[in-house]
Amino acid sequence: MTTEPLELTDLDLKAISVAKALAADAVEAAGSGHPGTAISLAPVAHLLYQHELRHDPADPSWLGRDRFVLSAGHASLLQYCQLFLTGYDIPVDGFIHFRSSTGLPGHPEYGHTPGIETTTGPLGAGFANAVGLAMAARREHGLFEPDAADGASLFDHFVYTVMGDGCMQEGIASEAASLAGTLQLGNLIAIYDDNDISIEGDTDISFTENPSARFEAYGWQVLDVDWKAGGAYHEDLQALHEALVTARAETKRPTMIRLHTIIAWPSPTKQGSEDSHGAKLGTDEVAGLKAALGLDPQASFQLPDDVVSFTRAHAAERAAAARADWDARFTAWQQGSPQQAALLERLRSGEPDEGLDAALPVWEVGDALATRAASGKTLTALAPVAPELWGGSADLAGSNNTTMAGEPSFLPADLARSEADGPYGRTLHFGIREHAMGGILNGIALDGLTRPYGGTFMVFSDYMRPAVRLAALMGLGSIFVWTHDSIGVGEDGPTHQPIEHLAALRAIPGLAVVRPADANETAAAWAEIMRRPEGPAGIVLSRQKLTVHADPEAARAGVHRGAYVLAEATDAAGAEVTPAVTIIATGSEVGVAMDAREALQTEGTPTRVVSAPCLEWFAQQDEAYRASVLPEAGLRVSVEAGVAMGWRELVGDDGVIVALDHFGASAPGTQLFEEYGFTGEAVAARVRDALARA
Amino acid sequence: MTTEPLELTDLDLKAISVAKALAADAVEAAGSGHPGTAISLAPVAHLLYQHELRHDPADPSWLGRDRFVLSAGHASLLQYCQLFLTGYDIPVDGFIHFRSSTGLPGHPEYGHTPGIETTTGPLGAGFANAVGLAMAARREHGLFEPDAADGASLFDHFVYTVMGDGCMQEGIASEAASLAGTLQLGNLIAIYDDNDISIEGDTDISFTENPSARFEAYGWQVLDVDWKAGGAYHEDLQALHEALVTARAETKRPTMIRLHTIIAWPSPTKQGSEDSHGAKLGTDEVAGLKAALGLDPQASFQLPDDVVSFTRAHAAERAAAARADWDARFTAWQQGSPQQAALLERLRSGEPDEGLDAALPVWEVGDALATRAASGKTLTALAPVAPELWGGSADLAGSNNTTMAGEPSFLPADLARSEADGPYGRTLHFGIREHAMGGILNGIALDGLTRPYGGTFMVFSDYMRPAVRLAALMGLGSIFVWTHDSIGVGEDGPTHQPIEHLAALRAIPGLAVVRPADANETAAAWAEIMRRPEGPAGIVLSRQKLTVHADPEAARAGVHRGAYVLAEATDAAGAEVTPAVTIIATGSEVGVAMDAREALQTEGTPTRVVSAPCLEWFAQQDEAYRASVLPEAGLRVSVEAGVAMGWRELVGDDGVIVALDHFGASAPGTQLFEEYGFTGEAVAARVRDALARA
Repeated sequence: MTTEPLELTDLDLKAISVAKALAADAVEAAGSGHPGTAISLAPVAHLLYQHELRHDPADPSWLGRDRFVLSAGHASLLQYCQLFLTGYDIPVDGFIHFRSSTGLPGHPEYGHTPGIETTTGPLGAGFANAVGLAMAARREHGLFEPDAADGASLFDHFVYTVMGDGCMQEGIASEAASLAGTLQLGNLIAIYDDNDISIEGDTDISFTENPSARFEAYGWQVLDVDWKAGGAYHEDLQALHEALVTARAETKRPTMIRLHTIIAWPSPTKQGSEDSHGAKLGTDEVAGLKAALGLDPQASFQLPDDVVSFTRAHAAERAAAARADWDARFTAWQQGSPQQAALLERLRSGEPDEGLDAALPVWEVGDALATRAASGKTLTALAPVAPELWGGSADLAGSNNTTMAGEPSFLPADLARSEADGPYGRTLHFGIREHAMGGILNGIALDGLTRPYGGTFMVFSDYMRPAVRLAALMGLGSIFVWTHDSIGVGEDGPTHQPIEHLAALRAIPGLAVVRPADANETAAAWAEIMRRPEGPAGIVLSRQKLTVHADPEAARAGVHRGAYVLAEATDAAGAEVTPAVTIIATGSEVGVAMDAREALQTEGTPTRVVSAPCLEWFAQQDEAYRASVLPEAGLRVSVEAGVAMGWRELVGDDGVIVALDHFGASAPGTQLFEEYGFTGEAVAARVRDALARA
Repeated sequence: MTTEPLELTDLDLKAISVAKALAADAVEAAGSGHPGTAISLAPVAHLLYQHELRHDPADPSWLGRDRFVLSAGHASLLQYCQLFLTGYDIPVDGFIHFRSSTGLPGHPEYGHTPGIETTTGPLGAGFANAVGLAMAARREHGLFEPDAADGASLFDHFVYTVMGDGCMQEGIASEAASLAGTLQLGNLIAIYDDNDISIEGDTDISFTENPSARFEAYGWQVLDVDWKAGGAYHEDLQALHEALVTARAETKRPTMIRLHTIIAWPSPTKQGSEDSHGAKLGTDEVAGLKAALGLDPQASFQLPDDVVSFTRAHAAERAAAARADWDARFTAWQQGSPQQAALLERLRSGEPDEGLDAALPVWEVGDALATRAASGKTLTALAPVAPELWGGSADLAGSNNTTMAGEPSFLPADLARSEADGPYGRTLHFGIREHAMGGILNGIALDGLTRPYGGTFMVFSDYMRPAVRLAALMGLGSIFVWTHDSIGVGEDGPTHQPIEHLAALRAIPGLAVVRPADANETAAAWAEIMRRPEGPAGIVLSRQKLTVHADPEAARAGVHRGAYVLAEATDAAGAEVTPAVTIIATGSEVGVAMDAREALQTEGTPTRVVSAPCLEWFAQQDEAYRASVLPEAGLRVSVEAGVAMGWRELVGDDGVIVALDHFGASAPGTQLFEEYGFTGEAVAARVRDALARA
């Protein structure tokens, strides 16, 4: 292995000292924060941003950049300091007002600060994002430049992540690391900050495992860089650089560089102690730190011109050199691959293909199929017009119907099951790892060009909930496919039957929970989700067959607005009249509502049925539309096989909520629907009672 | 190592065949289910239940029993067959009506079927429960028989678990396994069914890691038993038995026995295929299986008398022998250790100590401290009167205030940080592993004698949500301590600020979400939770200081009923009057409500404040009490710094919901409270508006 030369000047070393002091000062000014790791890893971050990463501070969204994910998000200042010093558009005020509404946020927030590739803080999440980012790069290589050799495409780049003990301990990282090993993501490099300290003190009270052996077991290349070796602590950037060169040279395995550090070094009394992790160091300690760094012990926010000029100029030079090459190749590619270039153009715009609606499958009213089956057929139909769409399942592809028929698997060549499978494949196999799946979907969505989806049973949305929340917080277009969406699951019993999940997911701000009532609504839901890349959606699908009630046009118009009149109230002559009763339902319970309507209409009670595939989209409609669908007058009734929570808002004090406020049981789904009152007759009876009481 | 002799008779082998056929028949009768693993592991289960486990089919709750956890819960029939064949009280009809409301449930359900130690199905959960069960055994040894040598106590027993590829891949199992290694749980034995098959087919599409090396990295003993070795498949029970003997002899490490099997063996065409995993085999295949097993190919539910008599008699003999020894020692212990015996008696009754209330700390109205701080003081105060209570945090002990002052850590001797620390310690260090913490707490609660608690930041309740759900489903007394419960978290920003969590947790049937308003309510909440071991509770605590509003007596009476009148509406003369406005609030927002009341009362608007620490307990009160606290008349207003979902039910159509339906930001908590309208003045303004509109 030939090692690229690393030449560090005095200004490099001074810049590292400046970054350490800047981090300490920002925490001091805020009165709280996490100085320890931002200080001890400052040399690492400097090396990455000044010598290793391909990036352009003047263009944070440059397609050709490497990605950097600070999975140990509490050390946000580590990254902020480098973004500042390399010239991203960040004012120094951001540090002075750190952790306040006018400064840099406590944890890195995507969309808030230029150069931040993902929101981190919940531990392990960033690591899973990094795995997704590395997968996205592979897929895009295949999508745009399939004939380029591995590593030689415009779309190839490295994904670097810094993880701490928290990430190492969280299950999501274990899941993601194992999958990254299987997928042979040679474009992924994780630096593990092994400092033996977590919040409760020495990590060995809960963590005596050998993480190197663990990652080797996952199929990773593991390199050890020990700054504590040989007695005196030495921030040996040459050794780290050599490890990074070795990491980049390895194309078939992701690399974990285990870096042994002393937290907060060279803070005089708090180095190596958990006291430096999550609290300000204090005036004296900061002064001591600065003295040890050769800086003025008393001055805050020291940003010497020579340092800042040097770091910004050096970063700009490196960016210019990298871009000169990349931009030229990009222009040549655009000319040589007009079709792919047009696709890239469209994907960057976020617009779906014009042929999207025309590609949707349609069903006849009266057909009967599970919405999960309709979803599978829709995915297959969308495959040619939506090349940006790709995904898979957490080992439930056959049950979740997540595979686009005939699309190859995303697998390393030596695991391929068919000739088409390969590293650029479209069908993902996440294994039984829902949480990592969520984090990986988010990573893919963060990459920005493609739309990823991932499926599991709805009850296991709980396993991936932190990732769903982060997708909502970041406004990512991740798509979660949740099938087996109610007691309709049946025989597998209460561990597999969602009861509280619709409410609990709707509680997440910014998440669209989409529960289509039939096959046509399912197709329409996919199209609508494709049109809304600005936030995540969960598509909630039945295990059991459902009768098609909506014709394709009505379904598309209705789904677009979130809720709509599926069947109007009529009088004996069949003329539309003001409803005495409006039943609002979602998913499989729309059929129940239709049955109840039938019974009530027969008795002379004009009854409307509103199908409400997405309450969030409905809430976005104007007041007039909402009132026209769900009138104040008359009795309002909701029917949904889940907890009542949330429905009172829609049906009012006098309304009826047909809900399920306890866990299910192991028995056939039809029997449970009957037993728990989800039949047309039972709902009609509830309506009659309410009308009699009114 | 001397190997205990294993003598298998022809009837043993026949019983294994009978169990395989019984599993296949039950799935066939149900029309769905998971036959593959129940068939291939039948010899394993037979070995365990007939030759290895210490258990008593006539007394499933015998304290001296070993515990068996089927973490691969979909293979429920594997366990059901053994429970039936060893004589637990299970009718054969349970198999004939498998997966229906009159038969055995699709997945093992705790409390439903005798001999089932935990509800499993959600993968990895059972494995974490097993770790908790192993920890509980250690703790109870220390609690009741501290002087007994390791392994020689009445309370020592082994915990066996069977895990599949799903458990191996789920992050919760990774977390729990790493902790089990650190804690040197030599009383834990996991059998990993390595059959290379999961639902999407060959596991290598997502799982090429080396699980043996991974578990060795965690500090486990790993033993390999390969039934496929040497060409012909051979269900080598002697080899497995020897591995189990080796496992039991290892006291400092948990053991993972990696057993290489062929799923569904010897099913003629579906052995080794994912087709046998989750669907019935079909008539012909079942006939072929029976033929291969030497049974009548056409007869269903074959339970030959000689087999059933043999297996039941053998199990009864083993139980009698084990009990003769254990019961005699137990009687001697009861006499020799009357104090511990009385404690055991009390713990088995589920009753708290009589001195519970007297031990609670009290605060003066007007004091100010964070409820997390009050919680820590309460735990310390309860330590002497509630020896059953123990717990810790997911690496946030100092922030969650979960440590009872001076109580030793639960750590192996060589990791002890003080002389008191040791394997029987009381303070748990879960590491940064919230999901495993939840599963371990449930395992400890399942053991049945102690009450475990575990803390993390409330926003990370999402990480452990599947475990919270299982605690609710099983009705376990697990206690979740969730601090940093709102935007009051402040500077750490939106990743750390719960917004939707109160609603999402309240959506879980059977979970008590307890959010005390001040220190006295916090102490009362702990006492109330101790009195309610029949279900889980989450205690939700503030980061920030809160003024004490309730005197200790009022707090105890009020918390007991879930919600109560904290401050009555009065007229200008100070006389209590019918409220024009009733403000209901929880936690830190009770103080906001009190401020609003102050402003409104001053203006002549008689205003009541209801503190509602637990809406679930309030819902259990009779209608009269509820109406007396929250009257229909007058304006009802809710104040809670979380999503509005759920509050309409309590405030009615005309009520006002002061809520927060978007994510927070990184800034001081007080500033966020102000900005988002959670001040007395802002609430009063909302009330004035509503009164003006009415």
